Amino acid sequence: MGAVNSTHDPALRSWVESANRVDADFPIQNLPFGVFRRAAAGDSERYRGGVAIGDQILDLGATELRSLASAAAVTEALIACSEPTLNSFLALGREAWSALRGFLSEMLRSDSPHATRLHAALVPQADAEFTVPTRIGDYTDFYASIHHATSVGRLFRPDSPLLPNYKWVPIGYHGRASSIRVSGQEFPRPVGQIMPKGAPCPFVAATRSLDYELEVGIFIGTGNALGSRVSLDAAEDHVFGLCLLNDWSARDIQAWEYQPLGPFLAKNFATTISPWIVTLEALAPFRAPWTRPVDDPQPLPYLEGAGVRAAGAIDVRLEVWLETERMRAEALAPERLSHSTFRDSYWSVAQLVAHHTVSGCNLEAGDLLGSGTQSGPGAEEAGSFLELSAGGKRPLTLRSGETRTSLADGDRVIFRGWCESPGWVRIGFGEVAGVVLPADLDL
Amino acid sequence: MGAVNSTHDPALRSWVESANRVDADFPIQNLPFGVFRRAAAGDSERYRGGVAIGDQILDLGATELRSLASAAAVTEALIACSEPTLNSFLALGREAWSALRGFLSEMLRSDSPHATRLHAALVPQADAEFTVPTRIGDYTDFYASIHHATSVGRLFRPDSPLLPNYKWVPIGYHGRASSIRVSGQEFPRPVGQIMPKGAPCPFVAATRSLDYELEVGIFIGTGNALGSRVSLDAAEDHVFGLCLLNDWSARDIQAWEYQPLGPFLAKNFATTISPWIVTLEALAPFRAPWTRPVDDPQPLPYLEGAGVRAAGAIDVRLEVWLETERMRAEALAPERLSHSTFRDSYWSVAQLVAHHTVSGCNLEAGDLLGSGTQSGPGAEEAGSFLELSAGGKRPLTLRSGETRTSLADGDRVIFRGWCESPGWVRIGFGEVAGVVLPADLDL
Repeated sequence: MGAVNSTHDPALRSWVESANRVDADFPIQNLPFGVFRRAAAGDSERYRGGVAIGDQILDLGATELRSLASAAAVTEALIACSEPTLNSFLALGREAWSALRGFLSEMLRSDSPHATRLHAALVPQADAEFTVPTRIGDYTDFYASIHHATSVGRLFRPDSPLLPNYKWVPIGYHGRASSIRVSGQEFPRPVGQIMPKGAPCPFVAATRSLDYELEVGIFIGTGNALGSRVSLDAAEDHVFGLCLLNDWSARDIQAWEYQPLGPFLAKNFATTISPWIVTLEALAPFRAPWTRPVDDPQPLPYLEGAGVRAAGAIDVRLEVWLETERMRAEALAPERLSHSTFRDSYWSVAQLVAHHTVSGCNLEAGDLLGSGTQSGPGAEEAGSFLELSAGGKRPLTLRSGETRTSLADGDRVIFRGWCESPGWVRIGFGEVAGVVLPADLDL
Repeated sequence: MGAVNSTHDPALRSWVESANRVDADFPIQNLPFGVFRRAAAGDSERYRGGVAIGDQILDLGATELRSLASAAAVTEALIACSEPTLNSFLALGREAWSALRGFLSEMLRSDSPHATRLHAALVPQADAEFTVPTRIGDYTDFYASIHHATSVGRLFRPDSPLLPNYKWVPIGYHGRASSIRVSGQEFPRPVGQIMPKGAPCPFVAATRSLDYELEVGIFIGTGNALGSRVSLDAAEDHVFGLCLLNDWSARDIQAWEYQPLGPFLAKNFATTISPWIVTLEALAPFRAPWTRPVDDPQPLPYLEGAGVRAAGAIDVRLEVWLETERMRAEALAPERLSHSTFRDSYWSVAQLVAHHTVSGCNLEAGDLLGSGTQSGPGAEEAGSFLELSAGGKRPLTLRSGETRTSLADGDRVIFRGWCESPGWVRIGFGEVAGVVLPADLDL
């Protein structure tokens, strides 16, 4: 687990004034990584790494910045960050990530002598376009919230909502990497086979039951060799950081296709992530003990350890907001549908990594893990429409007067995430937003 | 569907004499693509594309070859093939693949005036090491043999072996790309959670039920944009070619973990493919009508078409051979365990591609699809130990005197594949072999 250090000092302020606002997502204590270019430049400009500071991006490929680096590790990290994906930087490992963070923290402090020079390395976030920050070799989606698994299971099996393996196995499956995009993704309502209850045969149509899933994304930094495994104690050294992730799901397609090999078309049409990766180091002040109810089975040895027990959980507050077409037309604000915290996850980040590799499976720099839908214990903490509407039986009435049991065309779903804790400066994840377009039905 | 052309002419012979043997896997009518380097050169030599001819490889990066290309399309294709993966070449599309095949066929014919010059571009296969021929962005595994699905289903549900969706949906799931290696892969027996029937809780151990699965791999050539779909008629234009694939599986780990999201650790530790991709164009003489029993549901419109009906099936003969440690010690030949043909697949290659993209999912150049275990209707046509041993109830007795219900440490599993048809020259896939090493139990 990363310890708190001088980069977390709540007294730090930046010469980038927008970073010092009390509600800023990106104060100097955060310094999340993304990949961007200036939107106006388009294809004439290469994507490269950047770090968010207030409403600006510090361009990690800027010569003004590199010329100020004296440590070889920092120079090497900056060179890696100037590539169009962060894979090379992530592969450098935890010490390099930390060295770069320390350097950037110094450069951006209000007492830095280089502020004037570094102004040239800033790009306003409003002028940037973002892309998926790594080449994601493999994407794995977990199912780590027992509240989500129980709610969903109850819809199908009221008497035994949780399957017998749930409390033993961090359930996960391989997802589709090619359709992952950053916030702003717009996608047509997906088409697939639908089998109505009691019908003699399925038909092909656009899903009538499109849903979001509120997840945390976990970017793998350094990988492990095929045939080796990552121990629980070492697991967090392999994790670079977290983002927000929307695992869009077509429930009716999923219900018909998922036996016996799991979800396929129901989820492979789109997955949207926030553009900024908040590093595990930045999250150090927001760690919490990972606990398990005493009546539950305790983890098998490869998933059990003092480090996880002491601080395995991460208190990332999560929110889901919905903006419908009518809300836009009538200039109504988006409506908050639910809120939860990643702290309630039944399995910790380190446990997911240790489990993934216990078979000898190799993780690679830039791989992405999804946490699974992060629902909390309360009814208002449900991370999907499926749960909020009790499987469609209890339609939600929105303040706009509309009702919903699933997403309608034109709906924009926004997730927000942040961490706060007394005595520490709040840090944010920004947001991940995506829009459902009408289906293209030309089959 | 690719038509037969002059490159398939059974009268063609090559100046590479080993290509002219009647049992050659790689006659001039085949020309499969792989990625190789000379083993003795090691890291001092770059991997690049090559084409198998007899027991040799024609080095597609060789200047001797490129200097003979006159058509711009061929030069462009050769430049792409000199890269360390075939992704750029595959992205060029079907006309480029065909132009290069035509050129290589001319260069390698016995009447080519360039034989002497091109000798310098040959590398003996025995001196080469191979690697996965593309950067596989995503790997999808299907379940396209109804014989396999029925046999496996019967073990769990004797009265209703096939799930209701099987005859409607080409069932598939996302697999792990990072652990795919070419023939020769050796991997430790994987470790995971095992839950014995009736036990109060699972334990962690090396699998006691390791299996192979006999599959055909399908390399995607050109992709499709996210949000678009590939029609059945266009689907084969997106397919570059086929290989052999062993989907190693840990049955006991799978049984405990796979509900509700599908196999994960049970398959993510290793997948082995043959080094050569036999192009769809080379397979043109071995196409067969794709049929469906009249009493079965006929495909939904997006999976139905005259092209598939006329020649959607491909008659690739498949064999599984086993070589145990005792066989090696006693100099016994490997034993054939089973044989089947890809022709019996319930779903065709084009149907798999059309289904995969009907949701709007984007395929990318170099992606790999697995066909699922290709078992045939007969008992001796079972593509896995699970089926051959009736779920472990009927141990196989080998000629070496050993018995097996699953793989033992030291077992080497070899798949072979080839096509033959009266009037055409036989073409082969070579083989894919892999060896099970003892588990590393240091948890």
